[in-house]
Amino acid sequence: MHAARLHEYTEDMTEALSIDEVDRPSAEGPHDVIVEVEGAGWCQTDNHIIEGMWAEYAPQELPMTLGHENAGVVSEVGDEVSTVEVGDPVICHPVQTCGTCRPCRLGEDMYCENDKFNGLTTDGGFAEYLHTSDRAVIPLPEGVDPTDIAPHADAGITAYHAAKKAVTELNPGDTAVVIGVGGLGHIGLQCLRAMSAADVVAVDLKESALDLARDLGADETVNPESADVAAEIEDFSNGVGAQQVLDFVGRDETTALAPEITAAGGDHHIIGYGGHIHEPAQALVNGEFSYKGTLVGQYTELQELVALVDRGDVSLHTERYDLADINIVAERLEHGEIDGRAVVTPP
Amino acid sequence: MHAARLHEYTEDMTEALSIDEVDRPSAEGPHDVIVEVEGAGWCQTDNHIIEGMWAEYAPQELPMTLGHENAGVVSEVGDEVSTVEVGDPVICHPVQTCGTCRPCRLGEDMYCENDKFNGLTTDGGFAEYLHTSDRAVIPLPEGVDPTDIAPHADAGITAYHAAKKAVTELNPGDTAVVIGVGGLGHIGLQCLRAMSAADVVAVDLKESALDLARDLGADETVNPESADVAAEIEDFSNGVGAQQVLDFVGRDETTALAPEITAAGGDHHIIGYGGHIHEPAQALVNGEFSYKGTLVGQYTELQELVALVDRGDVSLHTERYDLADINIVAERLEHGEIDGRAVVTPP
Amino acid sequence: MHAARLHEYTEDMTEALSIDEVDRPSAEGPHDVIVEVEGAGWCQTDNHIIEGMWAEYAPQELPMTLGHENAGVVSEVGDEVSTVEVGDPVICHPVQTCGTCRPCRLGEDMYCENDKFNGLTTDGGFAEYLHTSDRAVIPLPEGVDPTDIAPHADAGITAYHAAKKAVTELNPGDTAVVIGVGGLGHIGLQCLRAMSAADVVAVDLKESALDLARDLGADETVNPESADVAAEIEDFSNGVGAQQVLDFVGRDETTALAPEITAAGGDHHIIGYGGHIHEPAQALVNGEFSYKGTLVGQYTELQELVALVDRGDVSLHTERYDLADINIVAERLEHGEIDGRAVVTPP
Amino acid sequence: MHAARLHEYTEDMTEALSIDEVDRPSAEGPHDVIVEVEGAGWCQTDNHIIEGMWAEYAPQELPMTLGHENAGVVSEVGDEVSTVEVGDPVICHPVQTCGTCRPCRLGEDMYCENDKFNGLTTDGGFAEYLHTSDRAVIPLPEGVDPTDIAPHADAGITAYHAAKKAVTELNPGDTAVVIGVGGLGHIGLQCLRAMSAADVVAVDLKESALDLARDLGADETVNPESADVAAEIEDFSNGVGAQQVLDFVGRDETTALAPEITAAGGDHHIIGYGGHIHEPAQALVNGEFSYKGTLVGQYTELQELVALVDRGDVSLHTERYDLADINIVAERLEHGEIDGRAVVTPP
Repeated sequence: MHAARLHEYTEDMTEALSIDEVDRPSAEGPHDVIVEVEGAGWCQTDNHIIEGMWAEYAPQELPMTLGHENAGVVSEVGDEVSTVEVGDPVICHPVQTCGTCRPCRLGEDMYCENDKFNGLTTDGGFAEYLHTSDRAVIPLPEGVDPTDIAPHADAGITAYHAAKKAVTELNPGDTAVVIGVGGLGHIGLQCLRAMSAADVVAVDLKESALDLARDLGADETVNPESADVAAEIEDFSNGVGAQQVLDFVGRDETTALAPEITAAGGDHHIIGYGGHIHEPAQALVNGEFSYKGTLVGQYTELQELVALVDRGDVSLHTERYDLADINIVAERLEHGEIDGRAVVTPP
Repeated sequence: MHAARLHEYTEDMTEALSIDEVDRPSAEGPHDVIVEVEGAGWCQTDNHIIEGMWAEYAPQELPMTLGHENAGVVSEVGDEVSTVEVGDPVICHPVQTCGTCRPCRLGEDMYCENDKFNGLTTDGGFAEYLHTSDRAVIPLPEGVDPTDIAPHADAGITAYHAAKKAVTELNPGDTAVVIGVGGLGHIGLQCLRAMSAADVVAVDLKESALDLARDLGADETVNPESADVAAEIEDFSNGVGAQQVLDFVGRDETTALAPEITAAGGDHHIIGYGGHIHEPAQALVNGEFSYKGTLVGQYTELQELVALVDRGDVSLHTERYDLADINIVAERLEHGEIDGRAVVTPP
Repeated sequence: MHAARLHEYTEDMTEALSIDEVDRPSAEGPHDVIVEVEGAGWCQTDNHIIEGMWAEYAPQELPMTLGHENAGVVSEVGDEVSTVEVGDPVICHPVQTCGTCRPCRLGEDMYCENDKFNGLTTDGGFAEYLHTSDRAVIPLPEGVDPTDIAPHADAGITAYHAAKKAVTELNPGDTAVVIGVGGLGHIGLQCLRAMSAADVVAVDLKESALDLARDLGADETVNPESADVAAEIEDFSNGVGAQQVLDFVGRDETTALAPEITAAGGDHHIIGYGGHIHEPAQALVNGEFSYKGTLVGQYTELQELVALVDRGDVSLHTERYDLADINIVAERLEHGEIDGRAVVTPP
Repeated sequence: MHAARLHEYTEDMTEALSIDEVDRPSAEGPHDVIVEVEGAGWCQTDNHIIEGMWAEYAPQELPMTLGHENAGVVSEVGDEVSTVEVGDPVICHPVQTCGTCRPCRLGEDMYCENDKFNGLTTDGGFAEYLHTSDRAVIPLPEGVDPTDIAPHADAGITAYHAAKKAVTELNPGDTAVVIGVGGLGHIGLQCLRAMSAADVVAVDLKESALDLARDLGADETVNPESADVAAEIEDFSNGVGAQQVLDFVGRDETTALAPEITAAGGDHHIIGYGGHIHEPAQALVNGEFSYKGTLVGQYTELQELVALVDRGDVSLHTERYDLADINIVAERLEHGEIDGRAVVTPP
């Protein structure tokens, strides 16, 4: 079968992946599930993987098929699989967990001590078929198209996971800030709207992103190129600040906003990455705020997100590309030229 | 009366404060409480205030009487005061709150929108008498000596506040790390022991501090001068890491430990300060850990800490100094020459 | 001034209260606030008070002016009042708290150890003027009419309080049940919709109430007269049951639903009252469910509810009555003949 | 092998179970684990099962081998088992879970949609060998004897589960009440002491149980035969009441204590059962307290309890009996003649 594979780390996105002919996987273990991929979302993390940014954090053996946002139809199952059947449309949680370590028993899939991460530590879904397990697939409700929903497998679940943590701290009258209304941010904004009655301020450098934010229910928008973000949020929140900030960008400039825009006791969630935090410890003490890292989300959170999609509370903006055009996607995302989310469709 | 006052910011602790003759305060407002000070703890924050480190964070008009860890006996009360009477021994929460703003109504005293902070934004307790309010005094149980308990007004409550947040996330079998077993750290360690069944690892550069930690119930101690902290904690926790880290030091070297020693989903509480956080956003994402700022604690938490002291669960190591020797205290703390906590006793 | 007062407990609602001429209150204490009442909601609890049902729970000296759902305009303030001024439109939290006991310091207004409850333990707002305090008034946003919002002072805050507890346990895809879509229930339903993405099932004996529920966003409605409630909820929730049940009725028949309709680990919130719980302890063990009592709500929750109203997320259905017609209101509510909420308007 | 089996429901404990010769189980499925039983605790629930009290709640096919508190040594494992090996000493969580339903994925083992409960819905451990799965066994730390620890598999985990919920609501200075210091209660008391700094009041009709409570750290004891429980707790808590009540008895008289002894906002945990709750809904409203059902505990909680045992924080009082004497155990527990916990040891 065809698969888009990374052979060596590179900064050059035009030659990032090569389309190779590889063996089609089969269900050899009792819990294996083989999915015929109908859609695989391209993620900023794919660019980071190609650049080698994850090499120090996760064990990778190249060449590897990338792609961690997958959905499709079950084509083969192992003997012990009881949760899905051949022919079922499914979305694939990106992590294949062991199910027996303590984190798995706590429902903390992302902390599994024996995990495999599609497209990061094992072959992913930029291919005709994906080899995964019965612990990593969620059947789709009737009427939900796998290609449309694929990006929720990572972009969606990550945004949902952050929003879910934020809403536990948000009361009516509070202010939430979404920094970056792109692939993840536009989902996070919808999740906040569906699950809280906080007032939401969206921050982005692109006017088209701010337009989208308003369409999706943002109460206020701020463009840092034309306004002072801290002053706007101070004003909007009557001097209190934002109880929760969802930073989908994660650059030095955005993490530096925290002391100025978070309310006392508030949280600045680090979802996007690429930049650094550089702050005096005294700033965190004085404002009693936190920087909270966010890593994808749990299997059960992906179930909840599918329910949100099924309710019509969250919609995705996607563009479709052939597998053969995958490096075009890589290049365009690198330059911020993709609106919403790109989905690769294998032949 | 005599009061130790700061006239200008300085790095020279030998001439930090001057003993001035000032007017004795009286209860003019209906909620005023005047306390005859019997003990006032000296805090690392006093050194930071003297150096001007708080000038950008809090409004200060010099000269000002420092001292935010106060206890003594009520000597005068306003007409509306019903919670204490003249003659009552009390410990003084460092913040005088308005009681009517939304944070006050939520019990979040530290976020009061109209607060006065003893020895930081209003005259404090390095003096014979302290002017405070009925919202900032807690009667002491019989048998508790005001001079002995004074440092709990800030050192104690801050350590307790951090420990209380930590124990909500600590299960039996989990690992907690206390970095810095000094004035605050030795209290925090006792709070962890009293309120959780986690295993506690204490980290300090001084062997005497580690001896104290073991006496107070630490399960393991690590001296960074002779051992690799990350490797020790990895080993102690069977590769999982520490679910909660209480950083009572807050220097660049200690905040940098977070990615290496926190368990997935864990927290690194910033309590001490002076240094910075410098970390890639990706590190927080990969380990899904948080940096959590900690600012003193609530009035009700000081009540809870007094209950812990009354139960015998937390004891304080103190040294007493005359008010006239206050700059000797400043100097000694600056050089790490005070074991436990120094308490200044006005004449 | 005129005031509707209870002279003795009675089952006869047609002669429940008498319109007396009493002294107009004035601001004698430093924290007193006098409110010219523009609207005072009538509550099922008023009927219960008239019947003497609260005599064993709360100290009452008759005669007493009833009315605990009040809003109006500030007409006089004590010397120390800083949060409102004469002329401000306000809604009145029903409880006047001391502000200094431990529950008050925790933000738990309802547990105040020195509280006065309007219309229950002190004179209420079925009168031209109400005597309250600066800790019990919340200024209204521009454009919000005191008469319209009055019932939120108790009906609203109680429903909000229960819904707020419920939403912390509700994920997308979960089921919430609202039993009784009357004065409180129709508010609770709107709060659930605004603050969660759970699916909501409304249960009521009146078809008009179920129509209202559907208008307000209920996903499903059940009339116990024509359908089996347990079977319907079992079916609706795919056999899982309801994670959260808000019982605004509180009769024997409704509390008895808990073992059959709550999901494992779920909660049955007791908001309405009048009936009993009669269940074997084993039923609670087997289903690991809880019966949770609900008592009005905090001052800060009333602030949050006002924010919800200001956002347009919660609307009230009210009917207005003259003070002189107050026993007609009592009688009609007793017979279930009031749709939404009756508001009494003093002359 | 020999197994103690229930053939029909009976009130006569002297002939409750018969010792039958049955086939020894073997590991047929890939996740099967066969444990050679070294100890199996006898539980009040065994008496309830024998009486038929669980027939309406759980599907049971008689005859069935009882025994849900098991520990022993692994004697055989299926092909896919990786968490334990033959020869490992283990404690057995009483529930065999599927691992793939949503409750399992949330870590909520007790709500598994495909569970088997040892000795309740499938053959248990009053036998030489137990058939269980890799999801239901926890390896024991070195030095922990399986026979000694066996009762923790249900008595221990249930008490721990309730105590863990309670400590999240208990601050220093708060009051916790343990009703019934028997097999479960004496464990719950130790868990409260290890994980909180609340003051603990123990209530029991037997003076020997109160002596044990004091030995284990109870701050106060009350015998309902010689003192008024409500008055004693009122006095002990300075009129506030108990924030958390752990009712290990669950009879009409103990559930009826809730309105009198719980603090406002407190919880009465129903752990023991056999009696009923009979309370007016108004009582729960007035005190805003809850009745919370408690059902065993999660697999990860059993891990935590094993850690507590390993730390020396929880010790068990046990008496050993031969399998052949099992009806003597049944009879003695029925009459309250067993101190601590009876452990049955197969030949």
